[in-house]
Amino acid sequence: MENNFIYGKNAIIEALEANNREFNKILIANNARADIKIEKIKQLASNLGIVFQFVAPQKLNQIEPDGRHQGVIAQISPVKYVELEDFIEQNQNKETSVVILDGVEDSHNVGAIIRSCVCAGIKGIILPSRRGVLINSTVEKTSAGAINHISIIKVNSLVNAVQKLKENDYWVIASDHHAKDNYYEIDYTNMNFALIMGAEHSGISKSLLKLSDFQVKIPMLTKFNSLNVSNAAAIILFESVKQRGKKNG
Amino acid sequence: MENNFIYGKNAIIEALEANNREFNKILIANNARADIKIEKIKQLASNLGIVFQFVAPQKLNQIEPDGRHQGVIAQISPVKYVELEDFIEQNQNKETSVVILDGVEDSHNVGAIIRSCVCAGIKGIILPSRRGVLINSTVEKTSAGAINHISIIKVNSLVNAVQKLKENDYWVIASDHHAKDNYYEIDYTNMNFALIMGAEHSGISKSLLKLSDFQVKIPMLTKFNSLNVSNAAAIILFESVKQRGKKNG
Repeated sequence: MENNFIYGKNAIIEALEANNREFNKILIANNARADIKIEKIKQLASNLGIVFQFVAPQKLNQIEPDGRHQGVIAQISPVKYVELEDFIEQNQNKETSVVILDGVEDSHNVGAIIRSCVCAGIKGIILPSRRGVLINSTVEKTSAGAINHISIIKVNSLVNAVQKLKENDYWVIASDHHAKDNYYEIDYTNMNFALIMGAEHSGISKSLLKLSDFQVKIPMLTKFNSLNVSNAAAIILFESVKQRGKKNG
Repeated sequence: MENNFIYGKNAIIEALEANNREFNKILIANNARADIKIEKIKQLASNLGIVFQFVAPQKLNQIEPDGRHQGVIAQISPVKYVELEDFIEQNQNKETSVVILDGVEDSHNVGAIIRSCVCAGIKGIILPSRRGVLINSTVEKTSAGAINHISIIKVNSLVNAVQKLKENDYWVIASDHHAKDNYYEIDYTNMNFALIMGAEHSGISKSLLKLSDFQVKIPMLTKFNSLNVSNAAAIILFESVKQRGKKNG
């Protein structure tokens, strides 16, 4: 549970040099003095393709209230991420669908979505490295073990990832409550799809909406139009399960 | 947020005598000395129909680590509960369905289920007073305001509640992964239903399963058979929404 973070400059430099951990990202307080060690962390991270982000110092204090962080904290993932290119190659000529989370912020929701994905036969989940939650101990716990049964793909650009999926014959479905079509009006049985779920308040970013082949909404029976994102994902995914199950008898 | 609990004997006696709060239940440490004040609390609670439960003292210490609780803590609800009889009477001759939670323990899940219920046009949610979560600040927060758009019914016996619903022409549907029928094989359009969702590990209690008119499962595409309960509820509820929406054009 508690190996999610590495605190302090020296510890993070050592971990980056050893390069035997799976980093989510490195948070640097935006008031941290740009000393030689911070510069070294930035350079090592860049060389390894690890994202670093400048955040309010309060954010670091929330994670590590004792102030031992020296203005820098590395988030460590409990799982090894898969490269999108490798995932696509390994799943060629198979029935393979993926879910893309565009900025989902709540770890409980991400964990629940991963559970639903595994139950629904989804093979991969794609998370952006800068926006939203990556895999942490809360995700691990709420996924009830499901994180070990799916490829978890971390990408620096969701736009590039979606373009790559389209080039490889995935059909892109965006869940958007402004859409005209209902989610059950799509035929999920004859395609590999990439379902994009957005953040609860801001929704899916416009650049991704533009790239999507289908935009679908979940119709409601009341004006209270505010489904939890993991529930919305489950509703759409299990429509695809139902259709595939019926087709296969 | 922090008005969820009342600690200590005198404070709880005062609150029970004033009787202007909505109590969830009263927790009494099972090593608390049965003094005159504890006896008074038990008697006042009984008179008001408020459940009291004996629990391990650690449970009280988790809620109130400073030890000011004197072996007794009252849980307060942020919403006013509705009586089942009143709910049934007020909704006679209307299309009215309800969801029953049999021992769901996670506040995030209860909050998410209430959101889905409101979006799906469900009019009431029934919670047992002894088993599982009642309405607390986490439920309130994760419901995103939905707790204000649905009748929340607290009952001492789910068996009695289900019998009363059946007498009033509700059809009882139990979600159970041992069931033979798939959830989408039911016609939800011509009935008022009461959908029972069970605890994630123990499922629905046998006495309730016996009372149910339908038992349904959600078929999976993999052997990993472990949907989050709020996602399972959303999948079934939105099948009913879909059928009702199609029927009404």
